[in-house]
Amino acid sequence: MRDNTATVPVDPPGGPRGLGLGEFRLRGGFWGGLQAVNTAATLQHCLEWMERLGWITNFDRVARGDTGGGRPGWQFSDSEIYKLMEALAWEHGRTGSPWAEEALASLTERVAAAQDDDGYLNTCYGHAGQAERYSDLSSGHELYCTGHLLQAAVARLRTTGEDKLVEVARRAADEVCRTFGADGSDGICGHPEIEVGLAELGRALGEPRYTEQARLFIERRGRGTLKPVTLLDASYFQDDIPVREADAWRGHAVRALYLAAGAVDVAVDTGDSGLLNAVERQWERSVERRTYLTGGMGSRHQDEGFGEDWELPPDRAYCETCAGIASNMVSWRLYLATGEARYADLMERTFYNVIAASPAEDGKAFFYANPLHQRSAAADVRPDEVNPRAEGGVRAPWFDVSCCPTNLARTLASWQAYAASVEGNRVSLLQYANGDMRIEIGDGELALRITTEYPQEGAIRIEVLETPSEPIGLRLRVPHWADGASLADETAAFAVEPGWAAIRGPLKVGMTVELSLPVEPRFTWPDERIDAVRGCVAVERGPLVLCAESTDFPEAATIEDLRVDPSQPLRPESDGATIQAVFAGGGARPGLPYRSEPPKSASAATTELRLIPYHRWAQRGSAAMRVFLPTV
Amino acid sequence: MRDNTATVPVDPPGGPRGLGLGEFRLRGGFWGGLQAVNTAATLQHCLEWMERLGWITNFDRVARGDTGGGRPGWQFSDSEIYKLMEALAWEHGRTGSPWAEEALASLTERVAAAQDDDGYLNTCYGHAGQAERYSDLSSGHELYCTGHLLQAAVARLRTTGEDKLVEVARRAADEVCRTFGADGSDGICGHPEIEVGLAELGRALGEPRYTEQARLFIERRGRGTLKPVTLLDASYFQDDIPVREADAWRGHAVRALYLAAGAVDVAVDTGDSGLLNAVERQWERSVERRTYLTGGMGSRHQDEGFGEDWELPPDRAYCETCAGIASNMVSWRLYLATGEARYADLMERTFYNVIAASPAEDGKAFFYANPLHQRSAAADVRPDEVNPRAEGGVRAPWFDVSCCPTNLARTLASWQAYAASVEGNRVSLLQYANGDMRIEIGDGELALRITTEYPQEGAIRIEVLETPSEPIGLRLRVPHWADGASLADETAAFAVEPGWAAIRGPLKVGMTVELSLPVEPRFTWPDERIDAVRGCVAVERGPLVLCAESTDFPEAATIEDLRVDPSQPLRPESDGATIQAVFAGGGARPGLPYRSEPPKSASAATTELRLIPYHRWAQRGSAAMRVFLPTV
Repeated sequence: MRDNTATVPVDPPGGPRGLGLGEFRLRGGFWGGLQAVNTAATLQHCLEWMERLGWITNFDRVARGDTGGGRPGWQFSDSEIYKLMEALAWEHGRTGSPWAEEALASLTERVAAAQDDDGYLNTCYGHAGQAERYSDLSSGHELYCTGHLLQAAVARLRTTGEDKLVEVARRAADEVCRTFGADGSDGICGHPEIEVGLAELGRALGEPRYTEQARLFIERRGRGTLKPVTLLDASYFQDDIPVREADAWRGHAVRALYLAAGAVDVAVDTGDSGLLNAVERQWERSVERRTYLTGGMGSRHQDEGFGEDWELPPDRAYCETCAGIASNMVSWRLYLATGEARYADLMERTFYNVIAASPAEDGKAFFYANPLHQRSAAADVRPDEVNPRAEGGVRAPWFDVSCCPTNLARTLASWQAYAASVEGNRVSLLQYANGDMRIEIGDGELALRITTEYPQEGAIRIEVLETPSEPIGLRLRVPHWADGASLADETAAFAVEPGWAAIRGPLKVGMTVELSLPVEPRFTWPDERIDAVRGCVAVERGPLVLCAESTDFPEAATIEDLRVDPSQPLRPESDGATIQAVFAGGGARPGLPYRSEPPKSASAATTELRLIPYHRWAQRGSAAMRVFLPTV
Repeated sequence: MRDNTATVPVDPPGGPRGLGLGEFRLRGGFWGGLQAVNTAATLQHCLEWMERLGWITNFDRVARGDTGGGRPGWQFSDSEIYKLMEALAWEHGRTGSPWAEEALASLTERVAAAQDDDGYLNTCYGHAGQAERYSDLSSGHELYCTGHLLQAAVARLRTTGEDKLVEVARRAADEVCRTFGADGSDGICGHPEIEVGLAELGRALGEPRYTEQARLFIERRGRGTLKPVTLLDASYFQDDIPVREADAWRGHAVRALYLAAGAVDVAVDTGDSGLLNAVERQWERSVERRTYLTGGMGSRHQDEGFGEDWELPPDRAYCETCAGIASNMVSWRLYLATGEARYADLMERTFYNVIAASPAEDGKAFFYANPLHQRSAAADVRPDEVNPRAEGGVRAPWFDVSCCPTNLARTLASWQAYAASVEGNRVSLLQYANGDMRIEIGDGELALRITTEYPQEGAIRIEVLETPSEPIGLRLRVPHWADGASLADETAAFAVEPGWAAIRGPLKVGMTVELSLPVEPRFTWPDERIDAVRGCVAVERGPLVLCAESTDFPEAATIEDLRVDPSQPLRPESDGATIQAVFAGGGARPGLPYRSEPPKSASAATTELRLIPYHRWAQRGSAAMRVFLPTV
């Protein structure tokens, strides 16, 4: 591990810095558990599937000049290898895993062998029997793939240092700058991603040319230059409105969010407050009107996109796992740019209720879409073949378009980076997890031991084991839902408000503070403008959104008949809750389902119904499920 | 006009027959008006667009052996020419229009010139530089196109008699039977339509071979033989479950409904009650749980398909105009097979609230999708180019996939066929419109004069002008919503129930009867299982679904803030209503739109709000709109 303070995915100049991967060692718990499964299963799983499907062999075929005939995988399949490489780089950097190092080295050799002399690197375009380079910027995804290559190289550079992967990335980035620079083509890629890749590689290598190229791509966008794709308009790829003029995110959610992340990078590096303010405005508007209770984004299947304001159907929610990851990419950059707790708040919600929902317990199957309502138990997946991407209700081992598993792998491998930030001589704890922090700060090191059963329990104990000689401050994020939180230090307990709770005075060795967050189950009502869940209530517990799953229903009860009474108390149970429910339906009546009288609540016995964390749904088998529960 | 009694699109053996086109002359009114616009504008409009886009020239290019290079239009564009030809044939048959006759003759020449020697006819496959015939049954649409050719020939045959178009169709049908017969390929077409075409041409020409071929296509379906299309499964084209085993319609709505129509044809012609019962069961289940208040079908944009039971979002309703037409094709065949009023009931709903909603007042622009909720006024269409098919909120002159305009043209040109039926010596009036009926029945002719302002007024007066010497009975359909209807004859008025109201005794010349249907505005509540409109109420008036349009809102009021009070009376106004409304919103608050307290109704002044018929929405310009109104 190199200099700990810089082993982070995102490292803008000025402002807080994220936690270096080596600065926080998880001791089990929620995120430690997920990270361990990623280590033990998911990385290898991704590697095996991409080898089996020939997506890695595509590089070998280019290297040996054998590019005629059918090429397996979509045109963007190279990006999956790069995201896995990024994951392997973080994994090796965090744990020193020889397996990860060897797998990465092997992939690096095969990728490097496919690079053209001038730095261009793509297995789908530009070689014998293939379409010309950059001949289809709308759908070709070449710059998108390159962006992921650059992010992989950043991970390598920050964990190990310059090597062959970094050299490959540098040559690829140079080719992009030559081709698309101020004197070159004025094209942009249909799928943003090159922007974040260029900006961060520029930071990591000290190459302002790369940031400038990212800036050009951001500025060119929104002017309708991309060739439209059938049935979709320019908003699908955010080519309808310039980034600095848009008020909300729209179109394909992952595209919109990768673009926004790149825009923050450019804004920070160039001191462009207008551009930064534009992304903050878009975040605000989109969080207010286009975001699910889970933090999920993307209301439509058709274009994997945002819908209009208040268009938030729970059943057809797309909430792609990758959009959750991309949302956190944006929020993290905005947090680093502003230090505002609200960005870390949304990240926590998304971590627990989108990102954690995707992987199966064994780390070998994944949700791609994350709907909040499943009407009927899903059919089984195809275990040995690729699955359609958007089938809800059952985790699949691999997808036709398989962006989510590798995106998850790189996110979980680097989770520590988002747990805290350091700004001068102050540390901010952002995400709570059981573990040991050792942070380079001031004139030495700060060591903290964090002990918690969060999110199941609300107590978070922080022991100060070591401090530098300079005085160090500590503040703790109090989530926006945490009404009634309190903080106890050596002398007293006092109430704290959502936002930040600062420890009084500098940290001292031997000191223990305890944050208590109220994680009793609570009712949450949707804004009355969200048509699709009118007359419903949800239940949350700490950062966890809960759901009702048909696995827990009385015999013969169906999800369409479930009603709950929010005037009755909720009772905590394990990491979920029990609620008073009735199943009062009588099935459909003949004829159209529209009547001349208002619906009457049939009387039925009240039953206790268990609610479980949303992120665990369908773990006990395929089931019907809903987050928003109709009230009696 | 040939024998009036057979000038109908659908003429199964036994049971009731539909009204010959010449047996009912409309005198203005709702349907007379729409038909007149179709005559005056839509037919010519379709012809011009397809000529301009080169879709008709595709036939000329095949004829002169010039099929290399790019071919304009989708692979199924031939079908649009055939649907227009069907419309022209009905139009000429109904009115004797020389323009329609000339246009049809010209198209027939150009189409005939493109037919291969063995009868195969398609401009996209099977010629130099094109893919092989039937090389992509999943997506190629060749048999779909042929099915529409056969329906056009049926229209010609029944209105004029054998001619070149009929000969072309016969040769095309023979080629299909040779290629896909019991001894041939066992393939099916990804888009059903050939089944209804073959069945009806078989009836019209007395060729049981064609019906047998339709039967083979029906029986082969549902066995997973179609190559899957990316991201869609076999249910998309109803290849997941055999027709006689399925319980509900699923997948692409137009495909599901065309298939069901063909299955009824085959069931009736072969006396297969099991198959007929299967389609009746599917109709029942789909009407109960998968149908919009407008009669619209299709809840999803992604696959233009049905959703699950109770999945009926008003905003993302697809409700394709073609699916409305296809639904009426099924309901009409089921009516002819069973004589049950419920099928004509659903047809009326769909006629007024889906089919009539599509065309603009000038007949030169169309809705493709028919959502029940538009959150913000739609952007303008592109007047001189093709438009994406699913843009809601504004009628477009033509579409990239332009199935709806020509489908509408053939439906409006033959509307009379569905207005009444004749079974033995009894006439059943099914759809009420101002006009003169002269029906061949018994040993002579029955002449009725129908006078009504329906649907604006509920009175329908029927005068008997002429009768044959044999006694003739008359029954009138009383719509399912018509609680409180009454029928008055010479001697008395009496209450009648939804279903059928029979005139007592045989019809006599000089007799007048009047049906009174209650068309005061009324509230309609959705079934409590339809999640997407919980807590809302709709307003209907006779067969018309009403809606609130932002054009009628007080200044600064927005659709997201609209609430109505169903305990307050509705007042009829013109063909709409006024309702007591409040606009109580205060805009969005910062942060996620989920709160720890239930939403409170802000107090606001009540205002009278005008509701208009849904089918007229967006006629006064682009607007926000909703059918289901949240209650206070």
